[in-house]
Amino acid sequence: MLKCTKLVTKLREGKIGLAIIKVGLLGLGNVGSGVVNIFSENTEKIREYIGTEIQVEKVLVRDINKPRLAELDQRILTTDPRDILDNPDIDIVVELMGGIEPAFTYIKQAMENRKHVVTANKAVMATYCKELFETAKANDVEIRFEGSVGGGIPLIDTITNKLAGNRIDGLVGIINGTTNYILTRMSRDGMSFDEALKKAQEKGYAEADPSSDIEGQDAAYKLAILAATAFGLYINPNDIPCEGITKITEAEIRYAAELGYAVKLLATAKNKGGDLEIHVHPAIIPDSHPLAGVNNEFNALLIEGNAVGELMLYGKGAGSLPTGSAVVGDILDIIRMMRQSAKTGSSLAAGRNNLNVVGEDTGSYYIRITVVDKPGVLGVITTTLGKHGISIASVSQRSLGERLVPVIFITHEVEREKLDKGLAELRNYSDVVKEVACILRVESY
Amino acid sequence: MLKCTKLVTKLREGKIGLAIIKVGLLGLGNVGSGVVNIFSENTEKIREYIGTEIQVEKVLVRDINKPRLAELDQRILTTDPRDILDNPDIDIVVELMGGIEPAFTYIKQAMENRKHVVTANKAVMATYCKELFETAKANDVEIRFEGSVGGGIPLIDTITNKLAGNRIDGLVGIINGTTNYILTRMSRDGMSFDEALKKAQEKGYAEADPSSDIEGQDAAYKLAILAATAFGLYINPNDIPCEGITKITEAEIRYAAELGYAVKLLATAKNKGGDLEIHVHPAIIPDSHPLAGVNNEFNALLIEGNAVGELMLYGKGAGSLPTGSAVVGDILDIIRMMRQSAKTGSSLAAGRNNLNVVGEDTGSYYIRITVVDKPGVLGVITTTLGKHGISIASVSQRSLGERLVPVIFITHEVEREKLDKGLAELRNYSDVVKEVACILRVESY
Repeated sequence: MLKCTKLVTKLREGKIGLAIIKVGLLGLGNVGSGVVNIFSENTEKIREYIGTEIQVEKVLVRDINKPRLAELDQRILTTDPRDILDNPDIDIVVELMGGIEPAFTYIKQAMENRKHVVTANKAVMATYCKELFETAKANDVEIRFEGSVGGGIPLIDTITNKLAGNRIDGLVGIINGTTNYILTRMSRDGMSFDEALKKAQEKGYAEADPSSDIEGQDAAYKLAILAATAFGLYINPNDIPCEGITKITEAEIRYAAELGYAVKLLATAKNKGGDLEIHVHPAIIPDSHPLAGVNNEFNALLIEGNAVGELMLYGKGAGSLPTGSAVVGDILDIIRMMRQSAKTGSSLAAGRNNLNVVGEDTGSYYIRITVVDKPGVLGVITTTLGKHGISIASVSQRSLGERLVPVIFITHEVEREKLDKGLAELRNYSDVVKEVACILRVESY
Repeated sequence: MLKCTKLVTKLREGKIGLAIIKVGLLGLGNVGSGVVNIFSENTEKIREYIGTEIQVEKVLVRDINKPRLAELDQRILTTDPRDILDNPDIDIVVELMGGIEPAFTYIKQAMENRKHVVTANKAVMATYCKELFETAKANDVEIRFEGSVGGGIPLIDTITNKLAGNRIDGLVGIINGTTNYILTRMSRDGMSFDEALKKAQEKGYAEADPSSDIEGQDAAYKLAILAATAFGLYINPNDIPCEGITKITEAEIRYAAELGYAVKLLATAKNKGGDLEIHVHPAIIPDSHPLAGVNNEFNALLIEGNAVGELMLYGKGAGSLPTGSAVVGDILDIIRMMRQSAKTGSSLAAGRNNLNVVGEDTGSYYIRITVVDKPGVLGVITTTLGKHGISIASVSQRSLGERLVPVIFITHEVEREKLDKGLAELRNYSDVVKEVACILRVESY
């Protein structure tokens, strides 16, 4: 049962005070520099916690001469991955390159060489977590990936270990900081989407090509990892129904605010009696919802467990030091685990998948329709929707003294299919109904 | 180095699939029943997680015939603590009796008999955590206490393990659900303190004798535990400067709301360059502060780490199942640890105490003064305060057409001592200054 790596042997022999743990880093960008800086800044605290020292033995970089954000001995930089992957002195390989290849191949090879792995790579984990968990198990090593979702927020560990005694019933979260920053600027400063995106790019919260963030793909990757962790369900991130925020206008945010709601890009995975409803999409949430106060670049995840009830974790979802904190936390946890044969989080989710994946099922919706401002229009709408079993919870019609006016209503719980049929029929009344301008899910609390 | 308890031996021998882990419960009240119910509700998930089963072997109760909230075999109930503490079959003792004695003696004895301990007892942990950590270390067993602070929220583990790579710079939290419920009702429903307290008692959020909650003592206990965990500082909870919410009126809450602030009972421990500022007191926080949205019986803790930045954990701070979830999480964690000699959270904080404890140091304050409504009064106030180095950030005077009116101002950062001197001088102007009616700290963000 028990592992006997060189390190464990050293520890067992009571040489713990002497045994330095050697780490190899793949990548020295933003997060990699953060990890190196945390090690040097918090050396004493870390030494006290694990009872030994951690040494960064080798760092794989593309260009040895590039200026770095972290101070470290130039001699440990290398451009040859074998200096890390095949290095018998290295106990833990930390992958912080990003992108699927060559990161995936390196991670796999490291584990096959009996090295533990820590990664913050959401693309690799979302796409290959099942295979990587199996590789870890087969080689009796650990793989940890706290930094791949929610930056410094300990989401993976909380779901896997702290809530191990709970059945997880649902996850709803804001797990993309870029879109949350954009929506916050649109809401607070009345910026247009384009202005807010530009601001996000200036502040370094959005990349030059922002499509993965604003189209919801980044959130879908992270949601796939969370679903694997919470439900043992390995879903291809490309199969997750996904809608970004590019169609959200500042007007929509204002209308929603007037009704007491905030517009957020939500990642949702809910166990509905054996069906797993999973999707990424913009939604409106009431101001009293704990996620409504999550603004700017912050992330938060609301976890529903059958014992703990609602638990929310909130923090910085990205950045050199926050994500570095999660990576260092994983490294320290592995060191604790290396001393024994503890069963770890990474492989635990496996085999618990007895859920069917479904997209949007039933829900409450926010609908904005542009109509001709004349008597009887509201009657046409409510009667038509009523025929399709769509019941209206609240409605707000604005007379702006213009020919076309917005009607905004929020439905009670309804099947999405029924809603679509009702709205389709409504579009037939083209003399009064000019446009179904916006449909947003309502996330209640 | 390695422990060789009977269970570890069983596990080492590969009998893991067969080895049932036996737990003894001290107490079967609210939380005890929750633990039993979680075990029976989530049996399969727990079995999968730890690879074996957990059996509640014996339960200490005062009265065997009392009706119980959990279904279990009457034959395992006992009124003799020795049936648990001296029982060679029991690996883990779970103390859920509450109160200091006999709980403390039982916990100590259990560890001396080489049993691991899980407790949710804030009074015992706040008062004796140092001694209990030492007893655990001396006997090579674990003690866990996640449920003693923040109910189901994994605060202790996050601070101890997940943020092990961080220097903790500060903790600010709402860690008493009773007072938060009362303040929420006063704020949302305009109830008086007495009405809200009565409501809290009806809902079971406050006890018949609510003094420990409303005077802040309960929060001080929990803060002492958090300070031990985050700063390795063992402080007598009675030495923590502590003020409850009994003096907060619904008027104060309304005035604060008009300025964009919420009134909350905050527990604070901040590392200010080697001084640990620690206290429990009502404060006002801006609506944009993440803690401002923590309402009703919910708890939340904002943790500031030098790498992770701000991290907030939010959830149910009490209750049978939420606290039961934390207790079960601790039991499962111990079982993972029992298989090896991992250094655990409980003893890690020891020896890191190089901080001086200080009370309120400098801060920004909300002050309400009742004055005679006549010209020049504001001038008297600002001049007097200015003389004492108290600079005013914002002021709001209300002319209500009455002789006496409130003046509310918020100061910039100032030493508490200076503030008190300034206010003392102000009281001398008794012809215009009728009362310094309220002083609240402002917790900024």
